[in-house]
Amino acid sequence: MKVAIAGSGALGCGFGYLLQKNGNSVTLMDYWEDHIQSIRENGLTKSMGLRSMMEAIKHTIKEDTQIVCLLNGLGHAQTLSEYVSQKNIIMGTTVWTAGIDAPGVTHFMGQGPVELQNADPSQEEAARKVEALLSEAGLNGVYSEDVHFTIWRKACVNGTMNALCALLDGTIKEVFESSQIDFLLNHIVSEFAQLARTEGVELDVEETIAYLKALALKVGSHYPSMHQDLANRRLTEIDFLNGTVARESEAKGLEAPYCQMITQLIHAKEDVLGISK
Amino acid sequence: MKVAIAGSGALGCGFGYLLQKNGNSVTLMDYWEDHIQSIRENGLTKSMGLRSMMEAIKHTIKEDTQIVCLLNGLGHAQTLSEYVSQKNIIMGTTVWTAGIDAPGVTHFMGQGPVELQNADPSQEEAARKVEALLSEAGLNGVYSEDVHFTIWRKACVNGTMNALCALLDGTIKEVFESSQIDFLLNHIVSEFAQLARTEGVELDVEETIAYLKALALKVGSHYPSMHQDLANRRLTEIDFLNGTVARESEAKGLEAPYCQMITQLIHAKEDVLGISK
Repeated sequence: MKVAIAGSGALGCGFGYLLQKNGNSVTLMDYWEDHIQSIRENGLTKSMGLRSMMEAIKHTIKEDTQIVCLLNGLGHAQTLSEYVSQKNIIMGTTVWTAGIDAPGVTHFMGQGPVELQNADPSQEEAARKVEALLSEAGLNGVYSEDVHFTIWRKACVNGTMNALCALLDGTIKEVFESSQIDFLLNHIVSEFAQLARTEGVELDVEETIAYLKALALKVGSHYPSMHQDLANRRLTEIDFLNGTVARESEAKGLEAPYCQMITQLIHAKEDVLGISK
Repeated sequence: MKVAIAGSGALGCGFGYLLQKNGNSVTLMDYWEDHIQSIRENGLTKSMGLRSMMEAIKHTIKEDTQIVCLLNGLGHAQTLSEYVSQKNIIMGTTVWTAGIDAPGVTHFMGQGPVELQNADPSQEEAARKVEALLSEAGLNGVYSEDVHFTIWRKACVNGTMNALCALLDGTIKEVFESSQIDFLLNHIVSEFAQLARTEGVELDVEETIAYLKALALKVGSHYPSMHQDLANRRLTEIDFLNGTVARESEAKGLEAPYCQMITQLIHAKEDVLGISK
């Protein structure tokens, strides 16, 4: 298959290497020369890069080009639908991880999976093809019956665990052992669930909180990625997590004050740290 | 006049010295021996010490004993009314400052004033007497026509400037230069004003925000006291500021999600820092 990877960060390079090795024709696409500073600071596979990436590559998109989006965060299918028709959008999540060691040197870790489903769940052929493509290359593709749920739940993890650790400057263990954790999780998850429901995704608040607590126990004493973003003076993805919940809830006449305040506080923290947009 | 000062921290000692020097009979009351550790950690003149202090000294309170309360924060007149009749409560604020250099060695700074008014504003004789007592001792007593407004506005300063700098680990200048400051001030001040109105105090939101911004420009690049509390691993007074607004609003059927979340986040921060109650 002809595969183009838009955003050749560490994860993109790892995927590209394995797909090419497995006999596909892979092109890594990026705007390294134009935006080297921005890549260094933010990475290109981050949520805030999606729109400018689509602007940069839209001249390469044809009628039958299919887009697979594995970004963290909410609202990306909507953004993509401005560039390709709904039937050509495949949404997914992955737990593969990767890092850049030096320019041109990346490492790739984990065992996946990559969960995939057509953005329009009534179609499944495209996602099935990509599932096979990935699995044949050793990337553990898995067709998902409900990728929107997986995306929302992952966003919930990032919008609670990541956002609170970043704001409170604590490890996951420290924050989840706080006397306030039940209040905080309940407020935030309820607002995610309220908006998810308007998009046909059922996030059970109690089940999600139990899932978050079990995950916190498992991952323990480390700082999640948004904390690392602030520590390394990089912009966070808060606008694509709690920020999306705040904004979309408001647009739909729903209240989401906790997500709104978390978003504002994280942006204020970026400002205090002198991180510029 | 016979004066007892309950809570002989730095400010109490300064007041006591000047009142005694001016011919009053002053007794410093405290429970130093029982609570030396608590005093070292929290100070005795802090909001959270009021109820236990009143419990400790209530056997000394007579029919005609008048209580003058100069504590920061909200809800203290209510607490005092459980121990003395309303007519014997005089509420006030002060901008005198003081510090403890070593056990038994304090310093005292500023020029006041001490603003005072009877908790029941229809009575003014008691507050007038204390005003004279303080002024004769060089403590710049000023009778206030609306001490409840002054107390609320001071609480608003502490519930915005102090709480945000503590949470965001920034100076007043850094936090007030953030792109988010207007949103944050507007949310928090609106909730203070909403509750103040139910107690007959009119806090104009726009005027209060203008006052806060002017104050921030004046005080500039330093960390306010709640930030110092966290830095020195002391509990904050958040329960008597945003916490009171959250709790009392809920009791009155009003929404105050921003004050509630700020309170929870500050408590979570205390927990992450290992500060015990």
